[in-house]
Amino acid sequence: MHMTYTAAVAGATGYAGGELLRLLLEHPDIQIGALTAGSSAGSRLGDHQPHLAPLADRVVADTTAEVLSGHDVVFLALPHGQSAAIAEALGPDTLIVDCGADYRLVDAAAWEKFYGSAHAGTWPYGLPELPGARAALHGAKRVAVPGCFPTVASLALAPAVGAGLVEPDVVVVAATGTSGAGKSLKPNLLGSEVMGNASAYNIAGTHRHTAEITQSLGAVAQGPVAVSFTPVLVPMPRGILATCTAKLQPGVTADQLRDAYLKAYADEPFVTVLPEGRLPTTAAVLGSNNVQIQVAVDEAAGRAVVIGAIDNLTKGTAGGAVQCANLALGLPETAGLSTVGTAP
Amino acid sequence: MHMTYTAAVAGATGYAGGELLRLLLEHPDIQIGALTAGSSAGSRLGDHQPHLAPLADRVVADTTAEVLSGHDVVFLALPHGQSAAIAEALGPDTLIVDCGADYRLVDAAAWEKFYGSAHAGTWPYGLPELPGARAALHGAKRVAVPGCFPTVASLALAPAVGAGLVEPDVVVVAATGTSGAGKSLKPNLLGSEVMGNASAYNIAGTHRHTAEITQSLGAVAQGPVAVSFTPVLVPMPRGILATCTAKLQPGVTADQLRDAYLKAYADEPFVTVLPEGRLPTTAAVLGSNNVQIQVAVDEAAGRAVVIGAIDNLTKGTAGGAVQCANLALGLPETAGLSTVGTAP
Amino acid sequence: MHMTYTAAVAGATGYAGGELLRLLLEHPDIQIGALTAGSSAGSRLGDHQPHLAPLADRVVADTTAEVLSGHDVVFLALPHGQSAAIAEALGPDTLIVDCGADYRLVDAAAWEKFYGSAHAGTWPYGLPELPGARAALHGAKRVAVPGCFPTVASLALAPAVGAGLVEPDVVVVAATGTSGAGKSLKPNLLGSEVMGNASAYNIAGTHRHTAEITQSLGAVAQGPVAVSFTPVLVPMPRGILATCTAKLQPGVTADQLRDAYLKAYADEPFVTVLPEGRLPTTAAVLGSNNVQIQVAVDEAAGRAVVIGAIDNLTKGTAGGAVQCANLALGLPETAGLSTVGTAP
Amino acid sequence: MHMTYTAAVAGATGYAGGELLRLLLEHPDIQIGALTAGSSAGSRLGDHQPHLAPLADRVVADTTAEVLSGHDVVFLALPHGQSAAIAEALGPDTLIVDCGADYRLVDAAAWEKFYGSAHAGTWPYGLPELPGARAALHGAKRVAVPGCFPTVASLALAPAVGAGLVEPDVVVVAATGTSGAGKSLKPNLLGSEVMGNASAYNIAGTHRHTAEITQSLGAVAQGPVAVSFTPVLVPMPRGILATCTAKLQPGVTADQLRDAYLKAYADEPFVTVLPEGRLPTTAAVLGSNNVQIQVAVDEAAGRAVVIGAIDNLTKGTAGGAVQCANLALGLPETAGLSTVGTAP
Repeated sequence: MHMTYTAAVAGATGYAGGELLRLLLEHPDIQIGALTAGSSAGSRLGDHQPHLAPLADRVVADTTAEVLSGHDVVFLALPHGQSAAIAEALGPDTLIVDCGADYRLVDAAAWEKFYGSAHAGTWPYGLPELPGARAALHGAKRVAVPGCFPTVASLALAPAVGAGLVEPDVVVVAATGTSGAGKSLKPNLLGSEVMGNASAYNIAGTHRHTAEITQSLGAVAQGPVAVSFTPVLVPMPRGILATCTAKLQPGVTADQLRDAYLKAYADEPFVTVLPEGRLPTTAAVLGSNNVQIQVAVDEAAGRAVVIGAIDNLTKGTAGGAVQCANLALGLPETAGLSTVGTAP
Repeated sequence: MHMTYTAAVAGATGYAGGELLRLLLEHPDIQIGALTAGSSAGSRLGDHQPHLAPLADRVVADTTAEVLSGHDVVFLALPHGQSAAIAEALGPDTLIVDCGADYRLVDAAAWEKFYGSAHAGTWPYGLPELPGARAALHGAKRVAVPGCFPTVASLALAPAVGAGLVEPDVVVVAATGTSGAGKSLKPNLLGSEVMGNASAYNIAGTHRHTAEITQSLGAVAQGPVAVSFTPVLVPMPRGILATCTAKLQPGVTADQLRDAYLKAYADEPFVTVLPEGRLPTTAAVLGSNNVQIQVAVDEAAGRAVVIGAIDNLTKGTAGGAVQCANLALGLPETAGLSTVGTAP
Repeated sequence: MHMTYTAAVAGATGYAGGELLRLLLEHPDIQIGALTAGSSAGSRLGDHQPHLAPLADRVVADTTAEVLSGHDVVFLALPHGQSAAIAEALGPDTLIVDCGADYRLVDAAAWEKFYGSAHAGTWPYGLPELPGARAALHGAKRVAVPGCFPTVASLALAPAVGAGLVEPDVVVVAATGTSGAGKSLKPNLLGSEVMGNASAYNIAGTHRHTAEITQSLGAVAQGPVAVSFTPVLVPMPRGILATCTAKLQPGVTADQLRDAYLKAYADEPFVTVLPEGRLPTTAAVLGSNNVQIQVAVDEAAGRAVVIGAIDNLTKGTAGGAVQCANLALGLPETAGLSTVGTAP
Repeated sequence: MHMTYTAAVAGATGYAGGELLRLLLEHPDIQIGALTAGSSAGSRLGDHQPHLAPLADRVVADTTAEVLSGHDVVFLALPHGQSAAIAEALGPDTLIVDCGADYRLVDAAAWEKFYGSAHAGTWPYGLPELPGARAALHGAKRVAVPGCFPTVASLALAPAVGAGLVEPDVVVVAATGTSGAGKSLKPNLLGSEVMGNASAYNIAGTHRHTAEITQSLGAVAQGPVAVSFTPVLVPMPRGILATCTAKLQPGVTADQLRDAYLKAYADEPFVTVLPEGRLPTTAAVLGSNNVQIQVAVDEAAGRAVVIGAIDNLTKGTAGGAVQCANLALGLPETAGLSTVGTAP
């Protein structure tokens, strides 16, 4: 018998919310319920998400526990700090999949250092492709969806770090599209500023996602990993292309390195280790839940070089969230998700 | 008395040639002479460079020594391998400023490894901001203009490497606009492929500019420097944003690091070490000969992080070439060059 | 009982072919069979369409009738002039959906004027939303899919022209993304040329789609319609935004005009006449089969102004083709097609 | 003897102000004086205009008559409605060049209809290439710089309209870059929204520039001209590409039409009627004060088709302002302005 679940989306007028709805509209087993937002509550979704034609006339409600209750799953795409109150009000039986940061970090001190507020707690981390992570998501009632940069950086580095093939000291430079910053009305996010322009931001370890990458790779390495992370804003709406390098341990060969990746992701539906000679591109994964990875050895520099590409809104946020919801609800992990990108 | 020089441009229909002409049109002391090209010889410049209105009706000649001779300076913007024959034919008294790679490398073995052909020789390296480089350019008759990536990567790292503040083991990831690839008709350079897309290429030490960065930093360090270099193609016509990191030597402080940069570039007209809190952007240097640099310390990762921005066609090619020609001809180094970008 | 059809795609390595495959991969009733191409035959699809992960290892065959035969439907995405021979060889019982121009025009003289070759003939025109067009597509064995510009321009103007509300003298200016030009390796299609640039091309009635728009509107008007059409290339990979105007007939009101559109498209699954105050954008229909239309009256100028947006590769080519195949095969018209765009 | 003038710029932190400063930095006869702004007064210019390296440390003052007084010329780049008070306070002897709309329209009723406020008055209109306009600018003390769309639309249509070669009923569809909207923090101007997207706005005669085009063409035609104007936002920071059409009067030939343009602009330093076979592009005029025009006849549609390209910030705003200031101050009209674009 075919079972259909209902889902509410809090933050439906933002980019993450819009991507959740785009995916849920095609999901065979989940039906869209309440849509909520903050300041834009009361307006029609079509004013904010004109690409979601079937939902254009839906009125967006206020983000309250009352509106969100009564669904099988509630997706939260809210500014950080707002999840705890909602989670408490909804109670322990509602599946809550939080696209925000509140429950991602285990270490309260790391949270406080990067977010400057009290730590809310820790939920199962929604990156099933990390070693051991999937088990905790089956049947879970709470999921913390990873940040977009940690998704691609962790998956690009985990096999090498986990197998001890590289030193626990990694450098990640990630070119990102602008939607990662959300719909914030900041001058530097205006089209006039972004187009024809590349710029680094939050450099030298100040980006909040640094803590998350450090946490995930540390767990994989079973020891501390130094993470140098630099995000670079480039002129495209979506996509992250992460260049990740680390010193090879002595004697490690290119074949060993490649094998570690092939083995790690052999059964993963959403991670593609590309054949030699092909390189990841963000266009190839646009709108898809796929992660493209290529791995190579720079002999002269003594480094492993791993390139990873994702769509920051899909696998990096909403697609990852749906994947976790599938696991939590007992649905096929790939339900409603595609490995087919929209290109050119 | 005001002295005017004449300049020929070989490769006038390409991007580097076009940028040379754009700058020379505004140069107070250099007059444009012959324009030459390969397969597009015989056509009018306006068919190839519609932005150079004053030269629209100029007919482009074949690239031959005959056409190029009789000028005070000849700028070569040619595919590699073509400079030697022209240089020999023009003789030792004509200033030749080569925007190509032929004479950049000192080490013949490095040349052969990366270019797969016989080494033509070595000319004075046209990056006057590197320690000791300017002296060799005053009155020179031959100049090898650096590659675009080496220009920004070397300037971003030289002060730290030269002062021994970081380990001689650097990671450079550089987002670049598409014009660096020239007008090559390759599928991956089509607008449909480039827009909305980021992709790494020539990864793991296979990009030819790796040899040049290694050479320049090695000279600065007076010892070998490991260079991990990854270029990332992003959707913009111009500009390079280089993220450069290296492990700090023990005990080095952020102030020491910053001071090294301020001191190194205090008198440089075309290098701006930005005040703390401002970050380089390629838009800010578009069309200008300026290099923007910011430097910071990532305490947790133990790394120096240096961000550099240039316009690959201006400071990274044609502007650097004009700057060197100025030095070689005895003109003011800044003649015809601007630190003002065109934004937004 | 669920019936599955098989489809071959000729021209699988181009943009139209890639979009056909993207849609067919999600089609519930059509299975992908042979993939063929011209010069890239023998290579793997992943080398050309990296976004189509499930088909990455498929080898592309030569475009021959032998390879294409034995499928229920053959989609042709070929340069014009190549369809007739294939159609003859495949015989009258195979459904052929031609994304090319060969069989679109009724008037042989118009064909010869614009294409400079002999007229191949006329097939049912695959724009079901035009008056009378759908009937001819039910059970058809041959379909000529419209050009991308004619799709949006005809749908944007047909209600006004057909109801006699405007003079039969229309002006269409359409901003288009670059993928409409295919993967042609032309200098003006390079990313460096396209980004940051807008340019008109094939002006003053020389674009071939002019004939098709003229034909469709003439049929709707039951009389000659003058069509001034100008395409404008703008920096985006996909999408057409058409601005269409015509003088209002005396006494026609804004309400009459709007009503004509609402009535014409009331039952159309893929045409949305937007509520007043919302305007079409190409982003809202990206990757979808939807057409967004807004219509208004400029009282001072005495003109109807109609704005239409489509994705040139989806509704404008491959989506339109699948829609027609659905009609021809007796499937639900909307099978495998979505009205949900991918934005931002 | 060389005379240098001083200039103040009000609105120095916006796009028009930034472009004024970019041009004035290269102007041989004008020295930059006070820089003022509204809410960003008190900050350094480098925080807002990082491309203007020589002015990075200049502190921006409040926009008051006190600060602006004492300069030979004051450029105003302010929201509309603010010019009158400043003009009155500065007195009749200071040259004021207003980039805003306040004094552009002659007809108070038209002003009130489009701007909804009281009409401030009318100053000499700063489009010297229009018939009769230059004379009024020589030695003027007040100049109203035209809007960006009116600049290109009026110049593209004036020769045909003025010579009576077309009906006084024109259609203008203009693709524009985003900087025309200024630095307004509106959601639809975010990079995420703009990139990969084309959209019309202020359709059906509601854009304020309609009044200005109507006024200029009416003056040229010496009678009323119907203007249908539609602006289309496309993904580029700068540039306008205007497609302008009008019905040809009976018997008018393509040669007659072309001759009218060649004659009208024969002596204009900033208008280039391109040779047949070349088409205007916004890239070719980026950062330059040039206007590119191509004109052709669509025989089948019976229309003149004129394509015009400008940089909206240069010839369309700040370049036009400097050109007018030159005329008003008695300097060479081209001083500090270039016909060379920055491309690619």
